[in-house]
Amino acid sequence: MLRASLGAGAVGLAVAMPERGRAADPSPPAEPDWSQSLGPGIGDRVYGHPSRFEADVIRRDVPWLTANAEASVSFTPLQYQQGIITPSGVFFERYHAGRPTVDPARHQLMIHGMVDRPLLLTMADIHRFPSESRIHFIECPANGGMEWRAAQLNSLQFTHGMIGCAEWTGVKLSTVLEECGIAKGASWVLAEGADGAHMTRSIPLGKCLDDVLLAYGQNGEALRPEQGYPLRLLVPGWQGNMNVKWIRRLQLGDAPWFTREETSKYTELMKDGKARGFTWPIYAKSVITFPCPEMPARGPGAYEIRGLAWSGLGRINQVDVSLDGGINWTRARLQEPVLSKALTKFTLEWRWDGRPALLQSRAIDETGFVQPTLAELRQVRGTNSVYNNNSIQTWQVKPDGSVFNVQLA
Amino acid sequence: MLRASLGAGAVGLAVAMPERGRAADPSPPAEPDWSQSLGPGIGDRVYGHPSRFEADVIRRDVPWLTANAEASVSFTPLQYQQGIITPSGVFFERYHAGRPTVDPARHQLMIHGMVDRPLLLTMADIHRFPSESRIHFIECPANGGMEWRAAQLNSLQFTHGMIGCAEWTGVKLSTVLEECGIAKGASWVLAEGADGAHMTRSIPLGKCLDDVLLAYGQNGEALRPEQGYPLRLLVPGWQGNMNVKWIRRLQLGDAPWFTREETSKYTELMKDGKARGFTWPIYAKSVITFPCPEMPARGPGAYEIRGLAWSGLGRINQVDVSLDGGINWTRARLQEPVLSKALTKFTLEWRWDGRPALLQSRAIDETGFVQPTLAELRQVRGTNSVYNNNSIQTWQVKPDGSVFNVQLA
Repeated sequence: MLRASLGAGAVGLAVAMPERGRAADPSPPAEPDWSQSLGPGIGDRVYGHPSRFEADVIRRDVPWLTANAEASVSFTPLQYQQGIITPSGVFFERYHAGRPTVDPARHQLMIHGMVDRPLLLTMADIHRFPSESRIHFIECPANGGMEWRAAQLNSLQFTHGMIGCAEWTGVKLSTVLEECGIAKGASWVLAEGADGAHMTRSIPLGKCLDDVLLAYGQNGEALRPEQGYPLRLLVPGWQGNMNVKWIRRLQLGDAPWFTREETSKYTELMKDGKARGFTWPIYAKSVITFPCPEMPARGPGAYEIRGLAWSGLGRINQVDVSLDGGINWTRARLQEPVLSKALTKFTLEWRWDGRPALLQSRAIDETGFVQPTLAELRQVRGTNSVYNNNSIQTWQVKPDGSVFNVQLA
Repeated sequence: MLRASLGAGAVGLAVAMPERGRAADPSPPAEPDWSQSLGPGIGDRVYGHPSRFEADVIRRDVPWLTANAEASVSFTPLQYQQGIITPSGVFFERYHAGRPTVDPARHQLMIHGMVDRPLLLTMADIHRFPSESRIHFIECPANGGMEWRAAQLNSLQFTHGMIGCAEWTGVKLSTVLEECGIAKGASWVLAEGADGAHMTRSIPLGKCLDDVLLAYGQNGEALRPEQGYPLRLLVPGWQGNMNVKWIRRLQLGDAPWFTREETSKYTELMKDGKARGFTWPIYAKSVITFPCPEMPARGPGAYEIRGLAWSGLGRINQVDVSLDGGINWTRARLQEPVLSKALTKFTLEWRWDGRPALLQSRAIDETGFVQPTLAELRQVRGTNSVYNNNSIQTWQVKPDGSVFNVQLA
């Protein structure tokens, strides 16, 4: 970014600038109070928290979205996310019977059904197995669900905030199942949570033996309570709902259980009234995080468009950005590391001339899957659906820099 | 890890195990209270925190280590760290005038000296530049300093806890310096903090143009106050002290400034009474995090030895583990992703027979540098030094599983 490309006022040049050569050293700015005093020592900051100036960076809920506060969801403030790691303090949470307070010394995991040796494991047992750490996103398949018809919430937090990405640590489920011995004919696993809802989902055994973790760690520390402390399932790249929290039971069987959460919920109601079930993976998706409704542009000049892309099928290969609602596309820069089933940060330098713009991003993953438009999704699935909306988001930038969520015809 | 290799009691088998074939389904364990009740909704957890059962996972200080609480240090509880990301809440902190409370709306960064156009930048200006996110460790060069002579603190937190690793986001310093125009002959940069200590360090311009960031983000959110909110220097792989926090001023010049923090402090006092200065990079280093004094073994059987390795010169290529105090070595598994100048997790499966053991780890980085023993370091540098102790750590495991910090002759 050359200085010449910065708009007036974009970078404060508070000192004299000669035509050529070096400027005289400016006077330093006045010393603020915090430069002339002693701050506190460690004191009670044995566990730290953000600056009080960051009080707006919080999870938020949509009061009208759910019937009550105990079966609800709060959204990650993606408009503030920097990089690919979502802070554990604002990682979105979805729960069906509130957040249970689980004592890790009393928590147990039972594994039974079509196994040779049923197991009852304590947390101490689970910590003793070989460990695995991986950076993966979790997305609720209802993320963007309010947009299927035309909610057009003017907010990145509420259109895309049911996602987060963390470094998870745990034991590979395959390691624990090997310990049990898998009976011949077993092909499905039922996962059940220890919360009051006893949330249950059926998961194909093949996925469980592939990359599923029994996770006890998140971003370097124990899972947070609202993320399933002390133990959750991590089902990389698949619907968030399958990543069963506070997990207490795994049952092996030879058929799915058709639980509430995979029949009346988390299925896709099609145009003809039939519903698609067991649509597990999160397909390639992306969104521009700056500018966005909560983070507008401030006058013409040089900017960096920033965003996040992800796919439940593997790595992101490419992200394109359009400034004109999808007519022309420019390839964005992907920030390393680009990891499988993880958020990937993309950026594109943008010189904004102050005229209206329609910003979009489009992700392509390593399988070649191209993120669709909402019109394309509706063509196939109609407007009854709630889940698995991975469509291209359009942000309209107005001449005053304000940003609006719009749906193109 | 085969079941046969697990020691008695290692994995709780609370249910009947037939000789062959499938066991009858056991009765599920009794339902605890949290499975029979509704937990709270989001309520005031708009910014979350760890479970109350994790109250021991905190930063700690060593009261006798520093003259007062305002020029002190607190240590990361590495014994609990899972994966390569250090939770921001327990990331070690070193400060020389306490922790200032800096208002980001009033904070400014001045860049002056041998530049064509001095700049005075607000935080809004800095956020507007192209951004960069990278996972890097920061280590205080005094980490392990208490061990130079023979403190032998029986604690991983206190022997190695002045380190942390995070995903940092900011703008490349080279981008901002390009904006200023670097005057001919400039070769050094002075970095000054806005805290009461006005902590200052001289940094070669070459490093600044290579990979230094002006960082405003850490693990997905704004820097924490004790990490330099709202802006710090990130000098990847070099002494922590150079990663100047609350940064307010960068001055370009043609010689170092020989500040207090690079003369009387942060230099290495050699055997002959001379001191080595400007010894910037952190050389290859590693430590076993399990077992360790705070996390003992619990009876013979199957374990996973876990640890962390890092180098300020690039990627970790190899970590070897010894069970017998450095006589025999076995190559450990490195957990992906292995990133440059970042913590790297290593693991090795270990079947402990219950006899005394001397556990060590030895890191080798991509430059071929091999982590030395403390004896080798003392041979070169004597016992006056405090800084840059990257020696191999020995943990003695006693038959009861307790672990002690020992120094081999």
